[in-house]
Amino acid sequence: MASTLDLKEATDSQSSWDTLLPDFPKGPLCKYRKKASFNWKEMAVFLDGEDIIQLKNRIFSALENDPFFAHHPGEDLSHEKYQELTFLRCKRLFEYNFLTPQEITEKPLKILNMINCLGMYDWSPCLKYFLHCGVFAGTILSASKRFADFMKQIYSMEIFGCFALTELSHGTNTRGIRTTATFDSSTQEFIINTPDFEAAKFWVGNMGKNATHAVVYAQLYTPDGQCHGLHSFIVQIRDTKTLLPMPGVMVGDIGKKVGQNGLDNGFAMFHNVRIPKENILNVAGDVTAEGKYSSSFKDVKDRFSASLGSLSTGRVLITAMSVTNLKLALSIAIRFSATRHQFGPTDEEEIPVLEYQTQQWRLLPYLAAAYVLDYFSKSLFENFVEFNAGLLRKQRSQRQADLGREIHALSAASKPLSSWTAQQAAQECREACGGHGYLAMNRLGEIRNDNDPNCTYEGDNNVLLQQTSNYLMSWMSCIREKAPFESPFGTVNFLQNYHHILGQKFTAISVEDCMDSSVPLAAYKWLVCYLLRESDLKLNKEKQSGRSDFEAKNNCQVYYCRSLSIAFIEQTVLQRYHDYAHDPSVPSTLQPVLKNLSALYGLWSLSKHLAVLYQGGYVSGEQAGRFIQNAILELCYRLKDDAIALVDVFAPPDFILNSPIGKANGELYKNMWAEILQGSKALNRPSWWAEFCINKPVTGRLRSRL
Amino acid sequence: MASTLDLKEATDSQSSWDTLLPDFPKGPLCKYRKKASFNWKEMAVFLDGEDIIQLKNRIFSALENDPFFAHHPGEDLSHEKYQELTFLRCKRLFEYNFLTPQEITEKPLKILNMINCLGMYDWSPCLKYFLHCGVFAGTILSASKRFADFMKQIYSMEIFGCFALTELSHGTNTRGIRTTATFDSSTQEFIINTPDFEAAKFWVGNMGKNATHAVVYAQLYTPDGQCHGLHSFIVQIRDTKTLLPMPGVMVGDIGKKVGQNGLDNGFAMFHNVRIPKENILNVAGDVTAEGKYSSSFKDVKDRFSASLGSLSTGRVLITAMSVTNLKLALSIAIRFSATRHQFGPTDEEEIPVLEYQTQQWRLLPYLAAAYVLDYFSKSLFENFVEFNAGLLRKQRSQRQADLGREIHALSAASKPLSSWTAQQAAQECREACGGHGYLAMNRLGEIRNDNDPNCTYEGDNNVLLQQTSNYLMSWMSCIREKAPFESPFGTVNFLQNYHHILGQKFTAISVEDCMDSSVPLAAYKWLVCYLLRESDLKLNKEKQSGRSDFEAKNNCQVYYCRSLSIAFIEQTVLQRYHDYAHDPSVPSTLQPVLKNLSALYGLWSLSKHLAVLYQGGYVSGEQAGRFIQNAILELCYRLKDDAIALVDVFAPPDFILNSPIGKANGELYKNMWAEILQGSKALNRPSWWAEFCINKPVTGRLRSRL
Repeated sequence: MASTLDLKEATDSQSSWDTLLPDFPKGPLCKYRKKASFNWKEMAVFLDGEDIIQLKNRIFSALENDPFFAHHPGEDLSHEKYQELTFLRCKRLFEYNFLTPQEITEKPLKILNMINCLGMYDWSPCLKYFLHCGVFAGTILSASKRFADFMKQIYSMEIFGCFALTELSHGTNTRGIRTTATFDSSTQEFIINTPDFEAAKFWVGNMGKNATHAVVYAQLYTPDGQCHGLHSFIVQIRDTKTLLPMPGVMVGDIGKKVGQNGLDNGFAMFHNVRIPKENILNVAGDVTAEGKYSSSFKDVKDRFSASLGSLSTGRVLITAMSVTNLKLALSIAIRFSATRHQFGPTDEEEIPVLEYQTQQWRLLPYLAAAYVLDYFSKSLFENFVEFNAGLLRKQRSQRQADLGREIHALSAASKPLSSWTAQQAAQECREACGGHGYLAMNRLGEIRNDNDPNCTYEGDNNVLLQQTSNYLMSWMSCIREKAPFESPFGTVNFLQNYHHILGQKFTAISVEDCMDSSVPLAAYKWLVCYLLRESDLKLNKEKQSGRSDFEAKNNCQVYYCRSLSIAFIEQTVLQRYHDYAHDPSVPSTLQPVLKNLSALYGLWSLSKHLAVLYQGGYVSGEQAGRFIQNAILELCYRLKDDAIALVDVFAPPDFILNSPIGKANGELYKNMWAEILQGSKALNRPSWWAEFCINKPVTGRLRSRL
Repeated sequence: MASTLDLKEATDSQSSWDTLLPDFPKGPLCKYRKKASFNWKEMAVFLDGEDIIQLKNRIFSALENDPFFAHHPGEDLSHEKYQELTFLRCKRLFEYNFLTPQEITEKPLKILNMINCLGMYDWSPCLKYFLHCGVFAGTILSASKRFADFMKQIYSMEIFGCFALTELSHGTNTRGIRTTATFDSSTQEFIINTPDFEAAKFWVGNMGKNATHAVVYAQLYTPDGQCHGLHSFIVQIRDTKTLLPMPGVMVGDIGKKVGQNGLDNGFAMFHNVRIPKENILNVAGDVTAEGKYSSSFKDVKDRFSASLGSLSTGRVLITAMSVTNLKLALSIAIRFSATRHQFGPTDEEEIPVLEYQTQQWRLLPYLAAAYVLDYFSKSLFENFVEFNAGLLRKQRSQRQADLGREIHALSAASKPLSSWTAQQAAQECREACGGHGYLAMNRLGEIRNDNDPNCTYEGDNNVLLQQTSNYLMSWMSCIREKAPFESPFGTVNFLQNYHHILGQKFTAISVEDCMDSSVPLAAYKWLVCYLLRESDLKLNKEKQSGRSDFEAKNNCQVYYCRSLSIAFIEQTVLQRYHDYAHDPSVPSTLQPVLKNLSALYGLWSLSKHLAVLYQGGYVSGEQAGRFIQNAILELCYRLKDDAIALVDVFAPPDFILNSPIGKANGELYKNMWAEILQGSKALNRPSWWAEFCINKPVTGRLRSRL
């Protein structure tokens, strides 16, 4: 009976999976698909759940069926046309309104999935939409309820918004912002001014061509001439009926970028632009009618942090957006590697490049990273939702402050880790696909170019890492005093065993011993404690030798604090995934491959710190390093037959992925030909043919000019 | 008297330097220029010599003064227009004819400098020109003297050529080429055929729109049906009067690439295309009128190598071209870093980002790499000239064969090292310039995108590295037998001390001890011997466990042979630079900085192998690693005040560098504004404004469709 029931249950699952996730077309990839150790549909449902898969399907098929989102093979879109198309697509997203506020409230994770789905198609319309509806609207919404009418105009696109913090000469160092907002009590207005061209707002997404309103960060001056620090204001920059600049505003487009060229990034300078007193977003402080400054924060630093609060959202999202790029690049490169044959045991027989050790080692650790970081990015988002709920409730408890600090420390390191991993993977994938990876149509260049800003905006990666090490170093006094401590999400709790952990050693005595992620995890805990101790010692040494705090900290970054932050976030990411993969509730059909991914990511990431492990004495002898290296190669080998199924789990439909060599049918050459010949100009004679055929150069004619 | 003479000599030098190398405009960079420990003009003349500087000046100023080469700020060039412009510029290069054959014969190095100068402006016209005049013409010229008339047509641009080896499904594995050339003795013709679309010629530079003739690699079949392997043939693909395809040829453009989009890469399929018997390039073999095959090579393998001989040129040149990209990226990022101020000891005082340890560590090792690899690329070119002279004289001595093997082994590793270094540096420079590095106008994206193919064409980097390790492994029998051996350029001679070297240890006992490149050099020699031993052991183990040669070799790449090749080439590069910088003939004014560059490159490169040094027991204890790390940071610190002068030595004029943030005046913000506002569309209202102002979306209108 039981087995019949099990069978029925299995059949039911299978049929519900098949409805959600149709089979892939037959073709050259079947060989690998058959070799997979698990059912990719079961995995997809296990990871995402049916409701998320339905949401993804809904978004993907809406885009595929909408002529506004059609691809045009071979088309050479001008910058202006691409911006226009991006605007039209953004408008279309209003009309689809994929998620209602209610759906978002019920399951906030859906918004993350929506962003990732749209980004998989193209980041430009996704960012344009999100900068308006998310960043611009969100900043105003969280400031005060008095902008309700304004919010309606935002959601109906009567106005279009942007978030103007960065200036030409100040980005990551937001304290250096120099735009001013001076209160004029005689007219009850703020007067916005750009002191000089170096203080022009710059890089602002949506500002280049489109935005009518900006949230402008400026130094607030009261009539008594006193500066009260950075505050934000709603400033109208263009007429909503004509899109022409408002008086006193010089606004324009900063020009082509390396990528994301559908998005119109812009600049603005303000010359005595007057805005009503009500336009201040009074999160941090406000001004009375008489021009007196009042703030609910006692401390200037707290006020500053609160006014920048909305920025941590960005880093949480970028962590996830980078994972999306990682998935796109891997979908293309791994499917290519399974179908591209090159060389072989004999001159007659060629084998898929995925069968080569080098190719596996180049790509499969990134595949593991995609799984591990994807899980982390979602869990971080859930953490952020918890923190944000408190923020919206104006929660001011100690726990809320601790949550804020921990989220800040986590996202300030996970954004660098995730964006760099995606950057490196995109490059490796480009190279791993050889020349064909360099053809624009195969999309690896676009993915790399579009991912690049993730390393820079919302705080430069290298600068951000300092935030995380500062946070970790702040626990040293507790550690020294052996006082008990914990953080709300528990990510630093293991530091309580600091002294014990520092006494540990690497104990594996075979490759097989290393095949579980518990091994790199233990090593990581030692590594974090070691780097924490070394960074702390180094900092104290620098200070004792008479250096200022500023200098001392700068001199502790390379090989110390920077490495510490990276090791800490890798450890945290691995810990979460290790726990997830080893949970008894994971179906036994999926657990082996998830454990392999966990182990591979852990060992591969750890191997980049191998020198420090030797240096600090955690590891010794020739064999220890070999075990780790051989375990990495063995895990790559074990995962290579699962690689296509693992990619099938997260690859978007062909229309969205939009890469001939990455298509699900695996017919890479046929797909490329189709794409090339659909381009109308491939076979055309160039318009300038007469320049070759008739006007011949006279060799050396111009030598006399030299 | 002596001192007066010295003074006069110095004044003379100074005035001759000033004529060759004008001063830079005053501005924010002066501060650093004054701090430099050496005279940048003296350095430039020392490195290049006056004649090379004159050549550079001649080329740079010709381009700057020619309207065909003008820049158009803010212009959004279409793919087609860019291809046209590239063709017109290429034609212009014929008219300039910067180097006569005589000049090239007198000083072959001039050709390398010419390519680098043109590439600094834009790789597309440079490659277009060189693929025709260098690769296409060179292949035919080295084949036989019977093409004299044809050569005239090449140099007068009556015809335009391309080099068609790669096929859609075969690139790096050239033995897999499937195009056929079947001899028909009845008409004394070869019949060229493409068996199927996967065997289409693909990626061929100049073939997309322009080439009238191609050197086509095909499997030669005699009338008896026998295949004689890969040979090359001249095939006309387009009519020279109309640029329309020849009968039986389907030829077209493969479309947009990630970069180098001025160059028209193309594809071609041949359907029974008949060419005269004379069109075979009979380097490897020929066919008699009766259809009998004859070859001057006994062995098929030798024949194959000879027919591919012309490919090694490419790798030598790519080594140098990558260094050019490295120089461009660094010129921009280091000038930016010296003028961009961000954060500081107090809120009021901001300091240049170059003053930060992290920024120094991110950029200055690449600056050292630029100097070290530049020297190597030139010395490798000189080696190649020696080898090529023998080739042209049809030299078949043992020494000529040994030269060939060594050049092959060196270039197969120096191309990967150089192209990857440039790729990573371009990425680091992009990030180190923050958002401004992401603006297209600042050119870092273009440099990265244009450098990318250097990792792929003329052999995929990872595959090429196997050639070098094969070469090194081939000396193991001599080493084992303790037989004396040497190579023509001496790069493997140190392996004679293999057993002695393997017994050595790291002996530095302070940071100061590590400050000379002799320390990393000794470590490198140990590292190469160690990796050679380990690779050899691993290979034998794999074979003993019953694996085929093919499998065994594949399983020895990661952590073994691949690391071996990289360590070997880094060691070779460092050895040459170490000898150069330590030569007593180096002026004492320049020697300290050259030695610092040598030490920094050596230690920084070595530090990536630190785990292996520990693992193999060359290094032990916590301090050893610290010495190396601290020496790197100390050298970065010592070099930071020389960094601008070091960049001034190799940066091309502003017009050529074409990057507002990289201009020699250091006025980064003014330069950026000028560039943005010169673009005609920066302040324009978008053409699609009514789509925003009038046609408002109805939110959620399309939800019902989902």
